[in-house]
Amino acid sequence: MRAVDLIGKKRDGERLTADEIRWLLTEYTRDALPDYQMAAFLMAVFFRGMASEELGPWADGMLRSGEVLDFSDLPGRKVDKHSTGGVGDKISLPLAPIVAACGVRVPMVSGRGLGHTGGTLDKLESIPGFSTQQSAARFRELVATLGCALIGQTAEIAPADKRLYALRDVTATVESIPLIASSIMSKKLAEGIDALVLDVKVGNGAFMRTTEQARALALTMAGLGAHMGKAVVAYLTDMNQPLGHAIGNALEVRETIDVLRGGGPADVRELTLVLAEEMLRLGGVDPARAREALESGAALARFRAIVEAQGGDPTAIDDPTRLPTARAVEPFASPVGGYLTQMDTRAVGTAAICLGAGRNTKEDVIDPSVGFVMNARLGDHVAEGEPLLFIHHNGVGVDAARKLLATAFTFGTAPLPPQPLVLERIGSPIA
Amino acid sequence: MRAVDLIGKKRDGERLTADEIRWLLTEYTRDALPDYQMAAFLMAVFFRGMASEELGPWADGMLRSGEVLDFSDLPGRKVDKHSTGGVGDKISLPLAPIVAACGVRVPMVSGRGLGHTGGTLDKLESIPGFSTQQSAARFRELVATLGCALIGQTAEIAPADKRLYALRDVTATVESIPLIASSIMSKKLAEGIDALVLDVKVGNGAFMRTTEQARALALTMAGLGAHMGKAVVAYLTDMNQPLGHAIGNALEVRETIDVLRGGGPADVRELTLVLAEEMLRLGGVDPARAREALESGAALARFRAIVEAQGGDPTAIDDPTRLPTARAVEPFASPVGGYLTQMDTRAVGTAAICLGAGRNTKEDVIDPSVGFVMNARLGDHVAEGEPLLFIHHNGVGVDAARKLLATAFTFGTAPLPPQPLVLERIGSPIA
Repeated sequence: MRAVDLIGKKRDGERLTADEIRWLLTEYTRDALPDYQMAAFLMAVFFRGMASEELGPWADGMLRSGEVLDFSDLPGRKVDKHSTGGVGDKISLPLAPIVAACGVRVPMVSGRGLGHTGGTLDKLESIPGFSTQQSAARFRELVATLGCALIGQTAEIAPADKRLYALRDVTATVESIPLIASSIMSKKLAEGIDALVLDVKVGNGAFMRTTEQARALALTMAGLGAHMGKAVVAYLTDMNQPLGHAIGNALEVRETIDVLRGGGPADVRELTLVLAEEMLRLGGVDPARAREALESGAALARFRAIVEAQGGDPTAIDDPTRLPTARAVEPFASPVGGYLTQMDTRAVGTAAICLGAGRNTKEDVIDPSVGFVMNARLGDHVAEGEPLLFIHHNGVGVDAARKLLATAFTFGTAPLPPQPLVLERIGSPIA
Repeated sequence: MRAVDLIGKKRDGERLTADEIRWLLTEYTRDALPDYQMAAFLMAVFFRGMASEELGPWADGMLRSGEVLDFSDLPGRKVDKHSTGGVGDKISLPLAPIVAACGVRVPMVSGRGLGHTGGTLDKLESIPGFSTQQSAARFRELVATLGCALIGQTAEIAPADKRLYALRDVTATVESIPLIASSIMSKKLAEGIDALVLDVKVGNGAFMRTTEQARALALTMAGLGAHMGKAVVAYLTDMNQPLGHAIGNALEVRETIDVLRGGGPADVRELTLVLAEEMLRLGGVDPARAREALESGAALARFRAIVEAQGGDPTAIDDPTRLPTARAVEPFASPVGGYLTQMDTRAVGTAAICLGAGRNTKEDVIDPSVGFVMNARLGDHVAEGEPLLFIHHNGVGVDAARKLLATAFTFGTAPLPPQPLVLERIGSPIA
């Protein structure tokens, strides 16, 4: 087999065989196929796509390029959730302990913030002492005893995906649905799960701007799950405004604790429960138990146990003032009065990064205390001068953030019709 | 500027600025832009093409990446010819001395065989002693005194093109009209010429299979020439059968000598004169002088002088038995009788390579003596058992060649209408 012939086949819109796909990935993983040939192949995939017959072996090859965890000795089905990323999306934090408290094991491997979006690992690490770096043995122990652990990707998981992701990042081949889908699925299925719930964000704060794109991604991932014998259910959910009120790492942990205490913003509660119920359904447990775990305090107790087991300070759960706190809080006042009709959610996320809530380069250090607390949602009436949000900062990047926020809000003279949070549910053939 | 942003722009069909194009090539040439980013860019160009506003700076950048010869101190316009490559295409050999004998200087830098096609350098080197490696100073001296020299590309000419060509070759990005056109033009214009005649081959023995593709390539090259202030005239010519009778290096030199002596196959004579007349026209010399130079023997004398000046044995011109000769000649008999209606010209070219007339890998050594002499042309009536061609060989690759030849000829019951050799003339705005 010659790489140039396979690149040419893809370029011309022909379908590669499973053997050809496997050969490409094997050669790439063992450094026998250079980056420049893979880059040309990826760009051809950007234009030509991948048939499901190609994508299955492709994702499978990435999955098998590294360690695949095996929790089959633990009873019950292991279920995880993945979000394609948004602003204020802290759902994993309340979700995992709820599901674990209901008896479904959640071996959750998460990522860091990407672009304008936050990352679960960054949020967790704002809890003093919390470590997302756990050995494989400790991860297994926590999943066995607490039903859940929240860790970062290890070097052993899907290394081919790691290399391909870095290559895509510098060759303008990130925005390809088959490549996105296979990257996510290869990492998630390496966790040794039986089923996966996907939260595919749609809107101006998401990577998928339209429902059509989001649906295509969801269907591709569900198809990949089916190919690998794993149940996948995808939800398309709204990302035309931040989820909840809090944006920023410690602020989002506070909001998580509010939710686990039975309060918190309605949209965060709603989405957490929708996804928890689906995870329980896939895990073979009565979905009604999700709400019970939340109301009984069992989920909060489980969260505290996980935090403690991963080295975090559990008293920060009971007394959130022990979480990192910004030195200054100042309002961002609405320049006009009217109904809030549109939010540039990506700009809001980027503004939070200016304060230090996320990274512009891989080397940047996050300030866990900074961020925003939103004071208005789409459809709300806001008076002139009323705060649209509060800026929690330590004196860094405030001007830049205000500049971005200045054009991020659009007002109208009439209220909006209510916008649904959950747009669509897409189940795979075997879910 | 970030390479990834420029790749993304091209990928999305946006037009790059001249500065952006120049930046890409400069960074690539100084090794600051890695091959994998260039490979992704080239694949995006394959799908999106290049606007003439992009292609001009692109070709210009490749041209200026190396040495640009300057013959402006020699009187008269310097004119060259380039062929996109075919089977039996030895036209450069009789053409250059005809034009030089008429007083138009031809600084000709040629290439080697590529794929199923032969190369001018390989043909010339079948003349005992002939060297296509000449110093820049000697090249200049020959162009000044004899009006012509026939050399190979030096390391100093368009090095960016050389690197890009090698990258395209292994990333399935060769077959892109803007990339082909800019590669040819950057090399040819580095010769310091004022005008160029292009022979764009069309048909089943050419890289361009259809007239539409060939026309697009011709127009792109003419446009590039105009951008660079050089007159370009392109001819689309038939390559649905080999040019002339001889295929193979020394065999084609013999045919060249036949033509320069006033004989040779009609199609080789016709195309040589068409291209010579155009070169004279572009050089400001009466085109009628081409035929006179051929008939007077002046062109043959000039060819002998060039051969001698480049180290070749001039007695081989007068006595072609001094050229390399294959040990065996055997007929390839027609399996049926009928009118020859179609030839798989690429298969015929590939069959000649099996004998050793060309290279399968860069390391292969050419046998200058082997090849074919065709005994039938499209439209001819052939009796069963009559030779379609004669195989000149040294015992290597004959079975493989016969196997390819076995399916290369198609016969019908009626003669074909005569097919024109010259299909179209395309002049650039400034030609």
